[in-house]
Amino acid sequence: MSSEPTERLDFIRLALAPGIGPSRLRNLLAVFGSPTAVLKAVPSTLAKVDGIGEINACNIHKALEFDLDGFLFQLQSIDIQLITWDDEGYPQLLLTIDDPPPLLFVRGNADFSIPAIAIVGTRHATPYGLRVAAKLARDLVAKGMVVISGMALGIDGAAHRGAVDGGGITWGVLGCGLDLIYPISHKNLAEEMIAAGGALISSYTIGVVPAPGNFPARNRIISGMALGVVVVEAPERSGALITAREALEQGREVFAVPGSIDSIGHRGTHNLLKQGAHLVENVDDIFNEIAAQIVTQYGKRPASAGVGTTKTGGGNDASLFALQELDVGSRRIMEQLGDDPVHADELSRMLGMPPGELAMRLVDLELSGLIAKQPGNTYIRNI
Amino acid sequence: MSSEPTERLDFIRLALAPGIGPSRLRNLLAVFGSPTAVLKAVPSTLAKVDGIGEINACNIHKALEFDLDGFLFQLQSIDIQLITWDDEGYPQLLLTIDDPPPLLFVRGNADFSIPAIAIVGTRHATPYGLRVAAKLARDLVAKGMVVISGMALGIDGAAHRGAVDGGGITWGVLGCGLDLIYPISHKNLAEEMIAAGGALISSYTIGVVPAPGNFPARNRIISGMALGVVVVEAPERSGALITAREALEQGREVFAVPGSIDSIGHRGTHNLLKQGAHLVENVDDIFNEIAAQIVTQYGKRPASAGVGTTKTGGGNDASLFALQELDVGSRRIMEQLGDDPVHADELSRMLGMPPGELAMRLVDLELSGLIAKQPGNTYIRNI
Repeated sequence: MSSEPTERLDFIRLALAPGIGPSRLRNLLAVFGSPTAVLKAVPSTLAKVDGIGEINACNIHKALEFDLDGFLFQLQSIDIQLITWDDEGYPQLLLTIDDPPPLLFVRGNADFSIPAIAIVGTRHATPYGLRVAAKLARDLVAKGMVVISGMALGIDGAAHRGAVDGGGITWGVLGCGLDLIYPISHKNLAEEMIAAGGALISSYTIGVVPAPGNFPARNRIISGMALGVVVVEAPERSGALITAREALEQGREVFAVPGSIDSIGHRGTHNLLKQGAHLVENVDDIFNEIAAQIVTQYGKRPASAGVGTTKTGGGNDASLFALQELDVGSRRIMEQLGDDPVHADELSRMLGMPPGELAMRLVDLELSGLIAKQPGNTYIRNI
Repeated sequence: MSSEPTERLDFIRLALAPGIGPSRLRNLLAVFGSPTAVLKAVPSTLAKVDGIGEINACNIHKALEFDLDGFLFQLQSIDIQLITWDDEGYPQLLLTIDDPPPLLFVRGNADFSIPAIAIVGTRHATPYGLRVAAKLARDLVAKGMVVISGMALGIDGAAHRGAVDGGGITWGVLGCGLDLIYPISHKNLAEEMIAAGGALISSYTIGVVPAPGNFPARNRIISGMALGVVVVEAPERSGALITAREALEQGREVFAVPGSIDSIGHRGTHNLLKQGAHLVENVDDIFNEIAAQIVTQYGKRPASAGVGTTKTGGGNDASLFALQELDVGSRRIMEQLGDDPVHADELSRMLGMPPGELAMRLVDLELSGLIAKQPGNTYIRNI
C-alpha cells in the first residue's frame, strides 16, 4: 500500500468521506488544488467552500482518522479493485458525463477499453422480453461488444445471462457495495460473469446496502459507460425509462424494442419510439447507429499506427467494422498484437491457444486486413 | 339521362374510351378545351396530341358509337353511381393527388365529405393484426371518421368489419368493376358496409376483372382519399407498403402498428417506423396527428358562419375537436343543421330518430358548443 502515491491515497480518503460526492469534491479541488491540500485545511476554512458547510467540513477532517490502509487491504482480500477518476483504467466514456463518480469499485476484469451497449428493462418481464434481451446480448458480444446492465431480475438478468452464454463480456453495475450481490438469486450469475472476463461495478463502497435512493446513481453509470442504451421491455413507469432519460442527457443513443400493443409492458418502449428512439429488431439496428462512434472512440490505436512499418492494410473503416465482428478468441489475439512483430509460437503460449486454432484465426485476421504477417512467422496489428 | 349536360356526358364517354387514362385525358382537354371538342376532332388531329397516337385516336373516335345511354341505364339498374372529377361529389382530397381518376364508380352512400383514415395490411394476418385492425377501425368510426381499405382478405377485411361493427361508415376501394365483389367471400361484408351508410368505390368500369395490374391504381385511391394510412401488419414485400409509399408521395400521414420482432409479419411495419412513420398504439396516436388537418379541410363550414346570427359558440378549435368525437347519431344531426333554424320535430322526422333520443343528443351538442338553441325549439349549427 505504501508504494501508492500520496496524492491518490488522499483522493480516495477524501472521496470516501461521508457527504462528499462528485460535486463537492470538484468544488474542494477547485479551491485547494489537490486532495492533500484539502485534507490539510482546517474545518473553518473548508466550511466556507461552496456546498460544504460545517458538518461536511467535520467529516472531511475526520477522514484523516480513517484507516485507509486497512480498508484497502480489506478490498484486496475480497478481490475488489478501486479506481479513481484520475486513474488510467477509469472508463473514459464515463468521464464525459456530468459528475462522474470519483471512485469505482470493481470485481473481475477491469479493462473498460471495449465498446459497450447497455440493455435494460423491467423486472416483470414477459417471456418475449427475456428472450429478446438474451438474444440481443448474445449477438452484441458476438460482435465484440460488452453488454452492460444492472443485475436486476427480469430483463437485466436475461441480458447478462445471454452475454455469458454467448461467451462474451458483460458488466453488471450495482446500487450497493460489491461485498453484497443484489438480488441474491443472481449470485451464481455474477460469478459466471466474472469467470467469463466480465466485471461487477459500483460507485458505492463495501457495506452499502441497496437502498432505493442508490439506483439513480447506478443508472447513470450504466448509461454513462455505454455508447447506447437498449430498452427491451418497460411499462410506463419503469426504472429503465429513467436510465433511457439519463442516456439522452448524456448524449448516448437510445434504442427500444417494439412489441405487442396489447401488452402494457411495451408502453414505455413505444413511448420512447414515439420520441425518436431507434427501433431495434436485431443487433444490426444497434450496431449501425454506433459504428461511427466505435471508430472514433475505440477503433483507432493511438500514435504511430501506419508510420514506418510495412503494413498493407491501414486503419480504414472497413477493417474497423471487421474488428467489431470478431469473436472472443480473435479479439484476444488482436489485444496481444501491436506495432512490434510477435511470433506465432509466442502468441500461442501467451493466449494458451492451440497452434492449429491460432493459425486458422491468424489467416482470417490477415484476410480481413486487421493484421499483417511479417518475416519469420511474426505478426503485427494493422489498426 | 337526357337531362344531363352534354359536356358531362361527353367527358364520361371520353374517359371510358379504351386507353384514355387521366394523363392522356388531361392532354386532350388542354389542347381542345372541352370533351365535346375532343370528340368532334378528326383522328388525324387527335393522333398528334402528346401521348395519343393513331390507335388511341381511333379509340376516341369509336367512342362516339358507344351506347352511353344504355351504359348509364345499366349502372343505374345495379345501383352504381358515376362521379366525374368535375362533379361536386368527387372526393376533394383525391383531387389533390397526381393524376386522380377521371371517373369514380360508387355503390352505396357517395358522401365523401367526412374525414377518412385508411387501414391496410397483409392478407396473411395474425390474430393480433386482425384484432388490432378491427379495434382501430371501431375506434376511428367512434370518433366520427371513415375507415377506408381495399376489401382484401386479412387486415383490410378486419378493418371494414370493425368499422361496420362499430356502427360506422367504411369505404371499400376495389381493383375491379363494382358488378363484381372481390374476394367473393367478402360479399356479405360489402352489403353490410353499404347498409351501414358506407360505399364501394372503383375507378374501373363494370366488367373489369381484378387483374394484378389494377391494384396500384386502387392503392393510390385508398391513400388519396385518406388523411393518413395506418399499416397494421405487413411483411417485407407486402402490397400494403406500396400503399404506404403512395401515401408518402401524396403527402399523407403514414402510421404503423408495432408488434413482436419475432414475427415476420411486422418487418414491413417496423421498417416504416424506422423511416419515420408514426407509431400507433391506439386511435389517439392517429387522431392527434391529423386533428389539425381535419380542422383545415373538413371542420369549418364555408361562408357566413358566425355572421349575423345569435350563435354563442363559434368555430373554435375545441368545438372542432368535439365535432370529431361524435358518434353516428349525433353526426347525422349535425349534417341536418346549418345557419337556418330547424325545429326539433322536423329533425326527428328527417332523421327518423325518436324525440327522446334526439332531445338528449341536442342537449349534448349544445353543451359541446357545436349547436345553438334558438327561439321556438329550433336549432342552428355553430361550426
